[in-house]
Amino acid sequence: MKSVIEIKVRGDHLDQHGHVNNVRYTEFLEEARYNLLDPHEDVLSVLKTSGIMLFIVNININFSQPAFLGDPLRIESGISQIDRKSGIIHQRILKNNRDKPILSADATFVAMDAATGKALPMEGKLLAGIQKIAGE
Amino acid sequence: MKSVIEIKVRGDHLDQHGHVNNVRYTEFLEEARYNLLDPHEDVLSVLKTSGIMLFIVNININFSQPAFLGDPLRIESGISQIDRKSGIIHQRILKNNRDKPILSADATFVAMDAATGKALPMEGKLLAGIQKIAGE
Amino acid sequence: MKSVIEIKVRGDHLDQHGHVNNVRYTEFLEEARYNLLDPHEDVLSVLKTSGIMLFIVNININFSQPAFLGDPLRIESGISQIDRKSGIIHQRILKNNRDKPILSADATFVAMDAATGKALPMEGKLLAGIQKIAGE
Amino acid sequence: MKSVIEIKVRGDHLDQHGHVNNVRYTEFLEEARYNLLDPHEDVLSVLKTSGIMLFIVNININFSQPAFLGDPLRIESGISQIDRKSGIIHQRILKNNRDKPILSADATFVAMDAATGKALPMEGKLLAGIQKIAGE
Repeated sequence: MKSVIEIKVRGDHLDQHGHVNNVRYTEFLEEARYNLLDPHEDVLSVLKTSGIMLFIVNININFSQPAFLGDPLRIESGISQIDRKSGIIHQRILKNNRDKPILSADATFVAMDAATGKALPMEGKLLAGIQKIAGE
Repeated sequence: MKSVIEIKVRGDHLDQHGHVNNVRYTEFLEEARYNLLDPHEDVLSVLKTSGIMLFIVNININFSQPAFLGDPLRIESGISQIDRKSGIIHQRILKNNRDKPILSADATFVAMDAATGKALPMEGKLLAGIQKIAGE
Repeated sequence: MKSVIEIKVRGDHLDQHGHVNNVRYTEFLEEARYNLLDPHEDVLSVLKTSGIMLFIVNININFSQPAFLGDPLRIESGISQIDRKSGIIHQRILKNNRDKPILSADATFVAMDAATGKALPMEGKLLAGIQKIAGE
Repeated sequence: MKSVIEIKVRGDHLDQHGHVNNVRYTEFLEEARYNLLDPHEDVLSVLKTSGIMLFIVNININFSQPAFLGDPLRIESGISQIDRKSGIIHQRILKNNRDKPILSADATFVAMDAATGKALPMEGKLLAGIQKIAGE
C-alpha cells in the first residue's frame, strides 16, 4: 500500500457497545485518502489547472472485527484499480500487531470537467496523474 | 420507506468544494437507522433479553449528486431484504422537493449470540422482530 | 429562548463512559445556532450584501450532568447580550422532562468587514439585525 | 507544553467560509488531551483501581485566526493549574511555522468517586498523579 497512517482509538470514537462506530471509521478512511494524496501535490495541481475534479461515487466498507478503546490502528490505502471511466482506492484497517484487517473498503472515484460537469475518461494527463499516485 | 427524517445542510457538513462531505452523510445515515428502530423498542428489548446483538457488516453508498449549504434533505430508511443469514437496510437521501435520490445506501446487518459470539440464522424470535421492523 | 431543537442521544454520541462526549455536544450546539438563524434569512441577506460577516470568537461550555443513550435532549438558544463590540448566544441543553440544564454554553460573536478584515461596531443595520434575531 | 500533536487541515474540517469549523477544533483538542495522557497509563491505572474518575466540567475556547485547507496545525497541551478542587488543561493550536496561537483553550476537570458520585479534593494519590501528568 502507498499510504500508511496510524490512529489510536479514543473514547469519542466508541458507541454503546464500546466498539469504534462506523461513522468514525469513515473519518479515519477520509483522513487516510488525503494522506495518500499528500505526496502528489504536483499531480493535484496539474489536474486543477486543467479543470479536472475528482469525485467519489461509491464507498463500500466491510466490517470484520470490532476495535476497542486504546487499540492502535493502522490504515493502509492505495489505488488498486484504474478503469476507462473510474479508479478505486483500496483501504484496509488493521490492529497494529495483526495480519488480518478488521475493515476493508473501496472508494470508487471518477473525474469530471469542472467547466462542463461532464465525466472524463481516464486518459492523457489525468491517467498519468492517477498512475503516478498508484505508484505505477 | 418506514422511516423518514429531515436534515438541513449546515456549514460544518461541507468540504472544500462546498459539497456535503461523505463523512457527514454517514452520520445522517446512522441517525436515520436509529430513527428506523425508534418505534420498535419492544423488538430491541426482546433481542436484548435473548442475548442477540445486531451488527452492521457492510455499508455500500452511491453518491449521485452533491448537496449544498441550506439544502433540505430527506432521508428514507427501511429494511429491504431479509435473507437466511443477514438483512439489508436500504436508505435514500433526497433533496426535499426532488424525486431522484442524491445518495442511496445499503447497510447489511447480521445477528450474533452475545454469549458465544456466533452468528445466528434469521429465524424464530429474531426473524419475527426483523420482519416487524420491516413492516411485514 | 428563541430556538428550541430536540436531539435524541444515539450510540455514536457516546464515549467509553457511556456519556455523550463533549465533541458531540459541540455539534448539537452548532446545529442549534444554525436553527436560531433559520427564520432570519432576511437579516443574513442584508449582512451579506453589506459585506458584514459574523464570527464566533469564544465558546464557553459548562457541563453539569451526563446524558445517556436514548436520552431526549432539548437545546435552547437565544441571543442573551449585545455589547458595543460583540454579542452572546446563550444555549442550554436539558433532558426533555427536567427543569435544570445538563449543559449551558455561551458563544461570543463579533462582526467583521469582509473587505477590510476589520472588526465592526454593533450599530446601524448590523445592530438592527442582531436585535431582530434576539427578538427585541 | 507536555504534549504536541500535528494535524493537517482536510476538506471535511472546513465550513462554508473555507475555515476550520469550531466542531472540528473540539475534535482536535479532544485528541490532544488523550495524547497528553498517553504516557501516563500508570497514573490512570492507579486512579481507576482507586475508583476515581476525571470529568471535564468546563471548556473555554478562544478563536483568534482562521485555519485553511492544507494548513499544518500543531496542538500543544499541558496541565497549567491545579487547585484544591479542580485542574486545568491548557491547550494552544498554532500553524506550524508561526509563533502566535490561532486558538487557545482551557479544559477544567474535577475528580469524582465513582462509587458515591461525590467530588474528590485534589490530594493524596490523586494529586500525585495529576502532578505527574503536569510534569511537576
